Amino acid sequence: MKALVLTGTKKMEIQDLPEPEVKPDEVLVNTAYAGICGTDRALYAGLPGSANAVPPVVLGHENSGIVAAIGKNVTNVKIGDRVTVDPNIYCGQCDYCRTDRPELCDNLSAVGVTRDGGLEKSFTAPASVVYPIPDSLSLKAAATTEPVSCAVHGMSLLDVKPYQKALVIGDGFMGQLFVQLLQAYGVHQVDFAGIIDEKLAFNKEKFGVTNTYNTTRDSIPADYDVVIEAVGLPQTQEQAVEATKKGAQVLMFGVGKPDQTFSMNTYEVYQKQLKIQGAFINPYAFKDAIALLASGEMDVESLISHEVTLEQVEDVLNGKVKGVSKAVVKVSD
Amino acid sequence: MKALVLTGTKKMEIQDLPEPEVKPDEVLVNTAYAGICGTDRALYAGLPGSANAVPPVVLGHENSGIVAAIGKNVTNVKIGDRVTVDPNIYCGQCDYCRTDRPELCDNLSAVGVTRDGGLEKSFTAPASVVYPIPDSLSLKAAATTEPVSCAVHGMSLLDVKPYQKALVIGDGFMGQLFVQLLQAYGVHQVDFAGIIDEKLAFNKEKFGVTNTYNTTRDSIPADYDVVIEAVGLPQTQEQAVEATKKGAQVLMFGVGKPDQTFSMNTYEVYQKQLKIQGAFINPYAFKDAIALLASGEMDVESLISHEVTLEQVEDVLNGKVKGVSKAVVKVSD
Amino acid sequence: MKALVLTGTKKMEIQDLPEPEVKPDEVLVNTAYAGICGTDRALYAGLPGSANAVPPVVLGHENSGIVAAIGKNVTNVKIGDRVTVDPNIYCGQCDYCRTDRPELCDNLSAVGVTRDGGLEKSFTAPASVVYPIPDSLSLKAAATTEPVSCAVHGMSLLDVKPYQKALVIGDGFMGQLFVQLLQAYGVHQVDFAGIIDEKLAFNKEKFGVTNTYNTTRDSIPADYDVVIEAVGLPQTQEQAVEATKKGAQVLMFGVGKPDQTFSMNTYEVYQKQLKIQGAFINPYAFKDAIALLASGEMDVESLISHEVTLEQVEDVLNGKVKGVSKAVVKVSD
Amino acid sequence: MKALVLTGTKKMEIQDLPEPEVKPDEVLVNTAYAGICGTDRALYAGLPGSANAVPPVVLGHENSGIVAAIGKNVTNVKIGDRVTVDPNIYCGQCDYCRTDRPELCDNLSAVGVTRDGGLEKSFTAPASVVYPIPDSLSLKAAATTEPVSCAVHGMSLLDVKPYQKALVIGDGFMGQLFVQLLQAYGVHQVDFAGIIDEKLAFNKEKFGVTNTYNTTRDSIPADYDVVIEAVGLPQTQEQAVEATKKGAQVLMFGVGKPDQTFSMNTYEVYQKQLKIQGAFINPYAFKDAIALLASGEMDVESLISHEVTLEQVEDVLNGKVKGVSKAVVKVSD
Ligand SMILES: NC(=O)c1ccc[n+]([C@@H]2O[C@H](COP(=O)([O-])OP(=O)(O)OC[C@H]3O[C@@H](n4cnc5c(N)ncnc54)[C@H](OP(=O)(O)O)[C@@H]3O)[C@@H](O)[C@H]2O)c1
Ligand SMILES: NC(=O)c1ccc[n+]([C@@H]2O[C@H](COP(=O)([O-])OP(=O)(O)OC[C@H]3O[C@@H](n4cnc5c(N)ncnc54)[C@H](OP(=O)(O)O)[C@@H]3O)[C@@H](O)[C@H]2O)c1
Ligand SMILES: NC(=O)c1ccc[n+]([C@@H]2O[C@H](COP(=O)([O-])OP(=O)(O)OC[C@H]3O[C@@H](n4cnc5c(N)ncnc54)[C@H](OP(=O)(O)O)[C@@H]3O)[C@@H](O)[C@H]2O)c1
Ligand SMILES: NC(=O)c1ccc[n+]([C@@H]2O[C@H](COP(=O)([O-])OP(=O)(O)OC[C@H]3O[C@@H](n4cnc5c(N)ncnc54)[C@H](OP(=O)(O)O)[C@@H]3O)[C@@H](O)[C@H]2O)c1
Ligand SMILES: [Zn+2]
Ligand SMILES: [Zn+2]
Ligand SMILES: [Zn+2]
Ligand SMILES: [Zn+2]
Repeated sequence: MKALVLTGTKKMEIQDLPEPEVKPDEVLVNTAYAGICGTDRALYAGLPGSANAVPPVVLGHENSGIVAAIGKNVTNVKIGDRVTVDPNIYCGQCDYCRTDRPELCDNLSAVGVTRDGGLEKSFTAPASVVYPIPDSLSLKAAATTEPVSCAVHGMSLLDVKPYQKALVIGDGFMGQLFVQLLQAYGVHQVDFAGIIDEKLAFNKEKFGVTNTYNTTRDSIPADYDVVIEAVGLPQTQEQAVEATKKGAQVLMFGVGKPDQTFSMNTYEVYQKQLKIQGAFINPYAFKDAIALLASGEMDVESLISHEVTLEQVEDVLNGKVKGVSKAVVKVSD
Repeated sequence: MKALVLTGTKKMEIQDLPEPEVKPDEVLVNTAYAGICGTDRALYAGLPGSANAVPPVVLGHENSGIVAAIGKNVTNVKIGDRVTVDPNIYCGQCDYCRTDRPELCDNLSAVGVTRDGGLEKSFTAPASVVYPIPDSLSLKAAATTEPVSCAVHGMSLLDVKPYQKALVIGDGFMGQLFVQLLQAYGVHQVDFAGIIDEKLAFNKEKFGVTNTYNTTRDSIPADYDVVIEAVGLPQTQEQAVEATKKGAQVLMFGVGKPDQTFSMNTYEVYQKQLKIQGAFINPYAFKDAIALLASGEMDVESLISHEVTLEQVEDVLNGKVKGVSKAVVKVSD
Repeated sequence: MKALVLTGTKKMEIQDLPEPEVKPDEVLVNTAYAGICGTDRALYAGLPGSANAVPPVVLGHENSGIVAAIGKNVTNVKIGDRVTVDPNIYCGQCDYCRTDRPELCDNLSAVGVTRDGGLEKSFTAPASVVYPIPDSLSLKAAATTEPVSCAVHGMSLLDVKPYQKALVIGDGFMGQLFVQLLQAYGVHQVDFAGIIDEKLAFNKEKFGVTNTYNTTRDSIPADYDVVIEAVGLPQTQEQAVEATKKGAQVLMFGVGKPDQTFSMNTYEVYQKQLKIQGAFINPYAFKDAIALLASGEMDVESLISHEVTLEQVEDVLNGKVKGVSKAVVKVSD
Repeated sequence: MKALVLTGTKKMEIQDLPEPEVKPDEVLVNTAYAGICGTDRALYAGLPGSANAVPPVVLGHENSGIVAAIGKNVTNVKIGDRVTVDPNIYCGQCDYCRTDRPELCDNLSAVGVTRDGGLEKSFTAPASVVYPIPDSLSLKAAATTEPVSCAVHGMSLLDVKPYQKALVIGDGFMGQLFVQLLQAYGVHQVDFAGIIDEKLAFNKEKFGVTNTYNTTRDSIPADYDVVIEAVGLPQTQEQAVEATKKGAQVLMFGVGKPDQTFSMNTYEVYQKQLKIQGAFINPYAFKDAIALLASGEMDVESLISHEVTLEQVEDVLNGKVKGVSKAVVKVSD
């Protein structure tokens, strides 16, 4: 079976692996598509994602495919089903799992991170993380269910209302998902901040946002009820807090570097009664993400800038392929 | 009518004022007790509180008394009722008032701040902010309903559960209220941080907390689900965030200085999925505060360190009276 | 000034009234449009609405217009502003008002019910209930802000998610608003139940719902996560509860007759863990309603079946005009 | 190993069973105490509980004990730990499990219902449902963690506040837990309804409630913000709804008979804006239940009317032992 194996830091090779065996609670999936994201770049570079990847391992935590086999305890999918897989597997035993915060699980494991994922012909996953998808959802779009589900989870930590004005900082793939999600949830005054004027102009047109800001040049008015930070830099985190009006909520969605800090005004957090909220992965959000994609409420296919083969993945990860906004790997037909 | 008038920055004098007239929607209250808090110190020193005080004005935004007269549109209290007054008056017309966030009102006014308050024989207030109190609640304790209501509002911005472990930083009057409130709402693992060992020892004994920390010496373990910051300094705000474990909520209750900042780790807000929440005054919290005081669930009388007369107030405000933890003014019998 | 006055039970006449005077907190509005709803039919017939109407009074609690004068304390609108008026006025003094449930106010009054409303050339309202509208919202559509706000409030009592399947029972004007609102809030599997096949077919096409049921003939499967009852009959309330699957929420939005009851299964409320939720008018929902209408997310103009004059209103109320789905009165240009 | 086996409808016998083997994810518990509740009576009589019991099976879904062995994947407990076991096991694969409503799991199984429970010397359970308990919690009290957790879950479906007035209908064991829980969560105006005057008098004294009602004789005023129905009869469900004031929440906690119905007023659900809420078992509530018991906030030991042996259990279940309020079985020392 053809597999793209991460064999060490910044090392990958195509190998012929035996097809994995299915345990009683597991499902074997023939991969259709696998998405590539920043976490894959981190893992390729030897850095941690939401969990740690120890080579040799097959990446691919965003994926879709067809059920090829099921273990004897599996009841939620059957052979032939079109599915998408939530990579994150919770231990069920720790305090976090047992107080309804599984995303903070002390023993988090993940398909495509701590165990083999979608960058190979077939992979296994516990049935509990395998979701059937409706006919109206393409396998290509379904490969982005995981990032959509992270944004859905982020939104669930906020309290948004139609009258509010929202700003998304960072006009990459996640930012583009958030703009659509805000609109899908009833918020229609959404603005966008980025660093490349052409991309901002494109996003303004595509998503019907009102104002765009180039954070390297423009100052953002303190006029937003909801701010989504989707970059992960101290300066954009600070800009996110500064863009708030009284009563605002800031979602700190971007993943920063462990040794960096951002600062905020001691008095304003009180006087504006701010809420600053972190967001970590995607608990209980797959069903919503699938519904949003299947209804056409969220468009992801037009945001996929590159469709590549297993052989091309390393060049996407090491940056040789330029201008990647979102890449998906076509693993098989 | 005897009144203590703030006549300028750091200037106060006893004057004989005419008794105020009652408008159709107003209540005339014969003051029993008025509480003194940090906001009064700020106003005395010419700094803003939640709103600005322009001398000449009579301070006293925490208070209790007896209804002496009511306007013709008043239905909720009658002459002779024992009452406590919520100082904060919301305009009703601004966007904040009309989206259920009156505390952020663009035109906030306040009894004892922008209009005459309790430091005089009688004062008026709109009926909408005058609350009858039950017999089981003393007029002295009722004079602290406003600070209790601020803490109640702060709690309402959090989601607390019995299994959680809480830390209160700042063992002054507000911190002492929060420890009691956490317990009243079902959280029984509560710890306390301050700067004076004797006071910490006293509080530990009095409130049955498990651990205390002297923030000038001890490092606080990153082990808390809920942290209440009730000091208002950058360093304690930073300690509050650092004391969190995964999934924690931090209430930034302390009021900082306008020109100061605190910083937090860029990566941890994401990886711990933190919530940092400001809290501003006390909307819709008076009925709860009265119920908590009347049931005996919250004890405030034993926390009142000083009972003073109108003549002694200025020495409390300018710091001549030392060791004040909580002072109330006995205005009349 | 031309006014249509309710002079007694089922009695109305056009009269020439003096133009009302504006009190300090009030706004004078030149009416553009007034909507007619079931509450007006009840008031015309001598029955109570959300409050009681005592003739002589001018109805018209749904309305829009232009500000003609403002009292001296008014800051939120100015002469010439295009506005819509929330009819409901809360006393501010009762326990409900002071525990953040003003809709349950013990002393509710209402423009167009307890005081003169929009069925005359000009009417007054407290500034706190007058809302400016953006240019993108027509005065005709704005006259339906009140019913939209009731639906918005109903939705705020539920917890809806994209994965859920919703059913709206009653395909009248309110039902049509709810279908759109569910979609605006991210729920895209919405079905519809009514009693007239042609209307159901029309609604199916217009709103893109999947299934329709004729409640006089079809049985509804117990398959819905969210059910909105928008009829107000015992049988449809029972159908609403029976259409639930485990974990469902039922919004009892329809207004029943005071002497009727509906019944539900004693065991199922437990075993399905049902939530049955009543909804009463529209607190804090005007800003959202305006935003939804102004963004184009909700279409109401195409749902207005009749545009009439003041002279024609009585025939709409007494049923002489047939086939009225939604009528608005053009009061002036 | 000594075990009390349910061998058929209303048939039980002491048998000598082999000690169960521990699977990789499981824990072997030496039972200390097992509680007996209404569900056990139902299962004994051949009726369903939250799930179905198929004889031969060992009942005992409320229990505590000492860890005797652990499977190789178990990390949350170790041999010798004092523990209590949550009986309910969720499949993890169904839509309910994956939308954060595991209590409604389509494939619910349960220790002491669908698999052997605590009425034997030792039993196994998945590690995910085994909870260590602190020293301050006795094994006897810990055997009631499951019913406490059901009440905790019920409370989590409500929004309670200190100013509210609550009524608990049904002064049995669950009602007694709810009165304590309401107080533990800050509600101190709690009243109680039952059918036996002596028991009501006892409960009034014990729990410091203000008013008691005998539902066979007294009419209950429509004066409650929160009503907990803990009987499960149509008449008490109807009384629960009728005891509400505007804005009230009713928790339908009692388990009714499948073929019974209760009725409510069509108009009042709207005009009072009522919330009627079912409650099913106990998701994510064990940690809170343990904390409440361990802190002393909830007292259960004094509510245990009978401590029996395995040999006496059948007489408790078939009603030969009279006057049982709460029975626990001492299985071993
Ligand atoms: N919380 C979670 O669970 C979670 C899940 C997924 C992702 N994330 C995080 O979300 C963030 C966004 O992810 P992504 O996949 O969208 O990444 P991405 O494609 O790299 O997008 C980041 C975007 O931010 C823009 N940007 C960079 N510096 C900026 C600045 N100073 N001001 C404004 N915009 C700036 C970039 O512009 P250019 O394109 O011009 O460089 C890019 O468009 C990342 O930090 C990622 O780790 C978090
Ligand atoms: N958000 C709101 O709506 C609201 C409402 C009311 C009050 N507040 C704010 O809440 C804060 C507390 O109010 P309060 O009335 O309790 O004031 P307080 O009586 O002055 O109490 C502050 C306490 O913090 C202690 N403290 C000072 N520095 C500390 C440090 N580095 N580490 C730990 N503890 C330290 C003080 O110790 P010593 O006694 O030894 O000096 C004192 O006990 C203030 O900032 C106040 O403005 C906010
Ligand atoms: N809770 C609140 O705050 C609030 C606010 C506004 C309105 N409401 C209530 O909401 C309800 C709907 O208002 P509306 O303005 O939409 O009234 P409406 O225009 O009369 O609509 C009711 C719809 O229900 C249909 N219907 C009648 N019997 C039915 C049955 N057995 N099964 C299914 N559908 C049936 C009617 O069909 P036909 O058209 O063929 O007769 C009509 O389309 C009313 O009860 C109203 O009082 C409540
Ligand atoms: N939702 C859940 O997850 C869940 C979990 C556990 C239990 N439950 C249910 O909760 C209910 C209470 O459980 P329990 O263990 O407390 O049962 P219990 O001990 O039998 O208590 C029921 C109490 O209700 C009293 N009662 C009977 N008829 C009454 C009436 N007409 N008016 C007022 N009181 C009346 C009984 O009085 P006497 O003692 O004088 O007979 C008894 O004290 C049961 O229906 C049980 O199935 C539900
Ligand atoms: Zn875990
Ligand atoms: Zn305001
Ligand atoms: Zn009121
Ligand atoms: Zn399940």
